[in-house]
Amino acid sequence: MFEDTDRRNFLAGGAGLICTLAGHKILAGDRGVDVDALAAQVPVPPKVAAASSRALPLPGQQPAGPGGQRREYWIQAERVHWNIVPSRIDQMMDKRIPGHWKFTAWAYRQYTPNFAAPMGPATIPGPLLQGQTNDQLVVNFRNKLKTPVTMHPHGIFYAEAMDGSYKGRFTDPGGFVRPGATTQYVWDCKPGTEGAWPYHDHGPMDPMGVFKGLFGAIIIRKPEDKVPDLEVPLFLHDFIPPATGLSANISCINGRAYTGNTPTIQAKVGQDVALHVFGVDNNFHTFHVHGHRWTNEAGKVVDNATLGPGDSLTVRFTEDNPGRWLYHCHVFTHLHMGMSGWYVVS
Amino acid sequence: MFEDTDRRNFLAGGAGLICTLAGHKILAGDRGVDVDALAAQVPVPPKVAAASSRALPLPGQQPAGPGGQRREYWIQAERVHWNIVPSRIDQMMDKRIPGHWKFTAWAYRQYTPNFAAPMGPATIPGPLLQGQTNDQLVVNFRNKLKTPVTMHPHGIFYAEAMDGSYKGRFTDPGGFVRPGATTQYVWDCKPGTEGAWPYHDHGPMDPMGVFKGLFGAIIIRKPEDKVPDLEVPLFLHDFIPPATGLSANISCINGRAYTGNTPTIQAKVGQDVALHVFGVDNNFHTFHVHGHRWTNEAGKVVDNATLGPGDSLTVRFTEDNPGRWLYHCHVFTHLHMGMSGWYVVS
Amino acid sequence: MFEDTDRRNFLAGGAGLICTLAGHKILAGDRGVDVDALAAQVPVPPKVAAASSRALPLPGQQPAGPGGQRREYWIQAERVHWNIVPSRIDQMMDKRIPGHWKFTAWAYRQYTPNFAAPMGPATIPGPLLQGQTNDQLVVNFRNKLKTPVTMHPHGIFYAEAMDGSYKGRFTDPGGFVRPGATTQYVWDCKPGTEGAWPYHDHGPMDPMGVFKGLFGAIIIRKPEDKVPDLEVPLFLHDFIPPATGLSANISCINGRAYTGNTPTIQAKVGQDVALHVFGVDNNFHTFHVHGHRWTNEAGKVVDNATLGPGDSLTVRFTEDNPGRWLYHCHVFTHLHMGMSGWYVVS
Repeated sequence: MFEDTDRRNFLAGGAGLICTLAGHKILAGDRGVDVDALAAQVPVPPKVAAASSRALPLPGQQPAGPGGQRREYWIQAERVHWNIVPSRIDQMMDKRIPGHWKFTAWAYRQYTPNFAAPMGPATIPGPLLQGQTNDQLVVNFRNKLKTPVTMHPHGIFYAEAMDGSYKGRFTDPGGFVRPGATTQYVWDCKPGTEGAWPYHDHGPMDPMGVFKGLFGAIIIRKPEDKVPDLEVPLFLHDFIPPATGLSANISCINGRAYTGNTPTIQAKVGQDVALHVFGVDNNFHTFHVHGHRWTNEAGKVVDNATLGPGDSLTVRFTEDNPGRWLYHCHVFTHLHMGMSGWYVVS
Repeated sequence: MFEDTDRRNFLAGGAGLICTLAGHKILAGDRGVDVDALAAQVPVPPKVAAASSRALPLPGQQPAGPGGQRREYWIQAERVHWNIVPSRIDQMMDKRIPGHWKFTAWAYRQYTPNFAAPMGPATIPGPLLQGQTNDQLVVNFRNKLKTPVTMHPHGIFYAEAMDGSYKGRFTDPGGFVRPGATTQYVWDCKPGTEGAWPYHDHGPMDPMGVFKGLFGAIIIRKPEDKVPDLEVPLFLHDFIPPATGLSANISCINGRAYTGNTPTIQAKVGQDVALHVFGVDNNFHTFHVHGHRWTNEAGKVVDNATLGPGDSLTVRFTEDNPGRWLYHCHVFTHLHMGMSGWYVVS
Repeated sequence: MFEDTDRRNFLAGGAGLICTLAGHKILAGDRGVDVDALAAQVPVPPKVAAASSRALPLPGQQPAGPGGQRREYWIQAERVHWNIVPSRIDQMMDKRIPGHWKFTAWAYRQYTPNFAAPMGPATIPGPLLQGQTNDQLVVNFRNKLKTPVTMHPHGIFYAEAMDGSYKGRFTDPGGFVRPGATTQYVWDCKPGTEGAWPYHDHGPMDPMGVFKGLFGAIIIRKPEDKVPDLEVPLFLHDFIPPATGLSANISCINGRAYTGNTPTIQAKVGQDVALHVFGVDNNFHTFHVHGHRWTNEAGKVVDNATLGPGDSLTVRFTEDNPGRWLYHCHVFTHLHMGMSGWYVVS
């Protein structure tokens, strides 16, 4: 038996506590926390309650910037049966991955206007949102989960009410989108917001939504920017037992683990390649690509770079080296817990 | 029972060991290590013993640089009753923080010349030290604790004897300031030292002094540099059970934990805002501000940045977005263990 | 007894699992994993089997770039009796380091042409490889261990077959150099590869080779680049119980732990000093030098910098401050588990 004293000592080191939800401590080893039940204990914030009978805000209530366009998205948070290791194989190590790696994830899914029909399946990461300088992104967000969740964007400009964050009694309606409810986020691609950014749930059950799959990418470009020939968002993250109900942590890229399950990126010599890498778990990572290097924002040539939770890293190079390469987190343990993939150049 | 073998295995992973003081292993789960008793077992280094009867060095024994000034501080390390969560509330999650979060911290406190009278209470972080290029900072430091401690500065120029570090038999008097003793540190704001830097204890009981609250900031500017309209040093750190005697780790900003207890920063639209962020624990952090972004030193626009122990990060932007925003470490577990605060713009 | 449930919970947090080798989980607390026995269970990849009877590739089969030279090395991986704390003393804390810190490490060792004779002992880090733009590094690599290992370089240009990485069924002969076998790596110092880079084992037992000492540095310069007056590669790494068989983790620089055992760097005022710092374990580190600062690649003056696994950091400054200084990782626990050294300036 793991005695209380030792258990307390162990936890005191901080290794065990993930967060506290509705007064309930979530520990690293908890399996399958009932987030919905905990969410039901969170009071509806006053501004959310007051807004509860409001209709969906009218689209277009704010102008886009000069020369910009209004780009409207219809995105729903929903449950999805998710298989982290569909092939049951790690091609890098040529080995079977034993165990059971399926769970009910939460994911963002894109729909046609007015949520008429889904545009493909729910994905991890969620739909890619894109705009140019001065565009306005209008995201109609519907929550089909049983827990209040949100979309909180990085990098892009937004007014306080469009923050998509739970803030206790100060929470705006977009920071606590109740089960079944719809809200509208209006975000502006103001000059100076160009870049690749993550968005993610930041609702009252944060970070459980993120650990269940609620994250995606925003790319904002200047109109004159060259669009890469090949562009891949890569989210480095853990699926942890409290979120998955599975028996162990697993290190993932875009919701999958182990080479051959994570994205196999196909490129051609001569292409302008951009890999947008995001950290969305509790860990720090380094991103490494075999046989390649790139110039970082400070002008240094590197083939490996550190990124932490919430960070964005764009790796961009002109492809010059054919072959089957590995890209991976260079934290050895993350690499061997699944955080690697193929980058195949023909 | 946590058997010896397993305990050893667990500790072998390095998760449990904080440091070794006077031959005594300090583990993450130890509560309230008697640092004073351990300190008493450390022999007085020879250069310290030889200097023990020396009077306080004469002020002004070194000239400041051309055009610079001598800026003299009187700082004492002392005990202070400290409440990490004075409101007992986390406003971000609108929840009570149960438990007991008071302990006897160690803090630097500023005094009027010759330690005539305290200039306000002891604070965490300690007094802000400031200078301009070519200035000389003269810090008269008195230790009212029962353990030898020091002030070790980053960034600024100093001669070997002014290092403020314990170095075993090579220790200078400023690296082992005995209980009751006073020393004088002379540090030079030479050209090339401009920036925001931490200072902290680096005495024979390092890192316990830091984990008990002994750290602060130095800001050095060029005479022609614009002073920000609003400038806040923010120290990201843990208070750990061996240092506090409390039952768990708690993630802090400037000695406080949870939104509403950590600094609530008040800004106005149009202000030139600088947040100087420092890492002073064993962890890596990312610093994120909602609704804002800034240009990092490499010219990249970011809204989130990684920093590690001993690192300094200056976030500077012209305020353009009114509202009540969160700033926080984006390591989810740190965020939910207290490392967040309000940034309120009117 | 550490019950299964709790053990699973503890491991679920990811704190315990290092990697999986031949289907066998390697935990942080395992002591002295028999890597050779596990390696024997890994099937020989098809391209390696097909190449097994091939002779050593002919040297010089690829031209170096315009104006470049062919630089040939003869390097062997072999066992070496290694003492992590030869002095049994930590000079920084002026204390004895109890316990037993010797183990059988794996190291790269340089030989004269055709492996005629060793050029000194096997070292951790391994031999420094150097080239100028357009040079070609030809590394004849022989494996005298009982486990297949490799040399995988960072930064330098190489064709797919020269990657030195195990990639399951896609593995090239250089990615699985069998016990007793020799291979030849041909790597090109193409324009744009200038810098300081790590190389390391990336064979089928990765990361155990790295954790046992198989890493070293490559420095590539432009012909017109000034060579520093003093240049030291510093590898920040852990020796962990599964790799060493020792009872605890120990934080090392260049295979040694604690001040006086790690490199004591001797410099002179006026020298152009370059410290090339590499991260080669599972941890993130910050590198700090007392009494000194440098300009990072973004043009910011710093005295402390973060680096992660696989990262390279070059600290370069003109020496201006005599004395006995500490350089160390500023993660306090790493510092106090051995990751510090003397930097002595006369």
